[in-house]
Amino acid sequence: MEEFEERTARILVRINELAGYSEDLQCLTRTFGSPAFIEAGKKVFMWMTQAGLHTSIDNIGNIRGRLVSADKKAKTFIIASHIDTVADAGKFDGTLGVIMGLDLVENLIKSKTAIPFNIELIAFSDEEGVRFHSTYLGSKVVAGTFDMNILNKKDAEGITLNEVVKFIGGDVGKIRGDAISPQEISGYFEIHIEQGPILFERNIPAAVVTAIAGQARIELHFKGVAGHAGTVPMNMRNDALCAAAECILQIESIAIAQKNKVVATVGKVAIRNAASNVIPGDVTCSLDIRNEDEKILEEAMQKIKQVCETVCNNRAIIFEWELIQSAKPVACDERMNQLLEKAISDSGYEMIKLVSGAGHDAVAIAAIAPVAMMFVRCYKGISHNPLENVAPADIKASLVIAEKFILNFISKYNA
Amino acid sequence: MEEFEERTARILVRINELAGYSEDLQCLTRTFGSPAFIEAGKKVFMWMTQAGLHTSIDNIGNIRGRLVSADKKAKTFIIASHIDTVADAGKFDGTLGVIMGLDLVENLIKSKTAIPFNIELIAFSDEEGVRFHSTYLGSKVVAGTFDMNILNKKDAEGITLNEVVKFIGGDVGKIRGDAISPQEISGYFEIHIEQGPILFERNIPAAVVTAIAGQARIELHFKGVAGHAGTVPMNMRNDALCAAAECILQIESIAIAQKNKVVATVGKVAIRNAASNVIPGDVTCSLDIRNEDEKILEEAMQKIKQVCETVCNNRAIIFEWELIQSAKPVACDERMNQLLEKAISDSGYEMIKLVSGAGHDAVAIAAIAPVAMMFVRCYKGISHNPLENVAPADIKASLVIAEKFILNFISKYNA
Repeated sequence: MEEFEERTARILVRINELAGYSEDLQCLTRTFGSPAFIEAGKKVFMWMTQAGLHTSIDNIGNIRGRLVSADKKAKTFIIASHIDTVADAGKFDGTLGVIMGLDLVENLIKSKTAIPFNIELIAFSDEEGVRFHSTYLGSKVVAGTFDMNILNKKDAEGITLNEVVKFIGGDVGKIRGDAISPQEISGYFEIHIEQGPILFERNIPAAVVTAIAGQARIELHFKGVAGHAGTVPMNMRNDALCAAAECILQIESIAIAQKNKVVATVGKVAIRNAASNVIPGDVTCSLDIRNEDEKILEEAMQKIKQVCETVCNNRAIIFEWELIQSAKPVACDERMNQLLEKAISDSGYEMIKLVSGAGHDAVAIAAIAPVAMMFVRCYKGISHNPLENVAPADIKASLVIAEKFILNFISKYNA
Repeated sequence: MEEFEERTARILVRINELAGYSEDLQCLTRTFGSPAFIEAGKKVFMWMTQAGLHTSIDNIGNIRGRLVSADKKAKTFIIASHIDTVADAGKFDGTLGVIMGLDLVENLIKSKTAIPFNIELIAFSDEEGVRFHSTYLGSKVVAGTFDMNILNKKDAEGITLNEVVKFIGGDVGKIRGDAISPQEISGYFEIHIEQGPILFERNIPAAVVTAIAGQARIELHFKGVAGHAGTVPMNMRNDALCAAAECILQIESIAIAQKNKVVATVGKVAIRNAASNVIPGDVTCSLDIRNEDEKILEEAMQKIKQVCETVCNNRAIIFEWELIQSAKPVACDERMNQLLEKAISDSGYEMIKLVSGAGHDAVAIAAIAPVAMMFVRCYKGISHNPLENVAPADIKASLVIAEKFILNFISKYNA
């Protein structure tokens, strides 16, 4: 085990080194296209090159290192995650997957393992979407699903995505050419921190991801009648906030009662012209619903909608349900998952299957290839926060599992 | 009735004329000390002077016109309301009472009615407290309860109250001298729009006010655990907003169940670092509770506090109850109210008694004298809004009632 401890130590050194690249001196913030982001990318480029990979930076800023198979007709297997961060981020989200992937590929080279497919290690450039409120800019370019229209989108300072692409050395005319075709690709594997509390609570270092939940984002609008908090008797009110409160509790109850792990969250409440002495007349709430099963997600949405309508009918509140965004669930590949499950069990850990409630680059790549993901336990499930942490023992355990998985996958690939 | 129709028309002309003095060209806004406020005050000063009153502007900007009794030892009876407004105000709030008071006094002069007390008509300078987040600057000076410490308070532009007093021509050193002593004053009468829906719903032009509700303003703090909306299962959440929603509904239920007309309002909800995909970890709500009875108000507060604590205990949410401000209820004078009730009945209207849920200058004056108030119906109870309106027929009806009341009060004063 001496070997895996050394590798774990090197992985941690690299993660900490990348954490030094921040556009904010007070905390870790490394958004797409910032100077800190570019420098971090160069560092990853250098590491990939030193490992012996044929490395390039594509036109959306993905760092891509290829290990080529002896088989000239071989397809390509991707190991990837992202190196951009949210504002005031932790250092493991995304980065852990890239750096562990690098270690895995380095060891395939070192051990001279014959590979039946080319391996492409990718550090995706924009998963968090902080700067352009976008989703998966990096992985969508690789999947060939990048929407060229959003090149005109502007960031908070009025800089277009088009300009950022130029700034990082890309050529928008060549973005299409950075895609890998579905015929070329054999699969995708991503290691990522769980960003949730289940592994921490269950005391298990890692888990197989069975699916990435579908998500709907809805705005709930409640229109009542504003009024003076002192002069309108309780029985003459049409308080939009009380209606919203009743709906918030109903949403919580419906999600809890649902046995299929629907999660539903009201994260934002906006009261128009709010004042402590004014009865709220106009309230808007955000609603985020997720589940791995498209049908269950749709049913939960409809049930919530119906209950909110009933609540508002009874209170003489005008209710509007506005669907803002929806994403279908993505199922992970059964065959790869079986190998991952075996790798976990063979490493002596309890095997549990998780659904990812958060979105990942695997969602974009699922459009062109079978995908698999492994979650690594993080401290209390905390993420998008400087407190985000992964214990060295869990990195080591995950590395052992991931290597077992990769070697098994390689050996069974042509079987 | 021809006479009262003419007087109503003149009242409306004056109210509309004052509505032209606004610091905002888009709407009516006339806050304490603004140039528009000063000009409106000069207009009222001129009207009082023309009516034959001994008129002065005191050091806090109150316009005060005295009608002196033949009895040299007579006390002073105040008829008053205010001429400042909220932002984007209606034109009747405050102004109606001042202008109707002016009409009543003009007619006492015209009819050469012998008065057993001096009458002081006051247009208070600051009731709304918009500029300095203060309460009753004008009437507190008259009551002798003005807090000299708040002269250092600054408005949104950094101008102190001290500077505003100088700007309007006042002398802060003489503010104390503007007070009327409790020995000098015999009573206080204020006409004001209801600012609530009851007269409108009951189809009655005016009502007696029995009390001005006591009020407590509280901040409710809910601390849970923020988390990712996609990755934290429903049964592992400590959602501060769900706890707040449950409390909001409990507060509503407690107020409705209370048979003594407690009103309780949550008007503001602030979620720290709110985002649609983040489980709220930190929520603050405002709570405004009012009732005419101090004991009932206190009981309702304690019950609400207890229920919120129970809700939060059950949800493992840390709860804090922070009392921001409280004002005791003010009871109106029984003797004056009986005369007001008689005036309403004698004028042929249904007599109902209302509690004022909103605060008024009468609250400040109650510290030194018996007070009475009459509410006039306003359209749908709408106030603090350009839609605020009073039907001419209601002004006329109220004028008839108020004059009956004043004359009866005068004739019975020494009886």
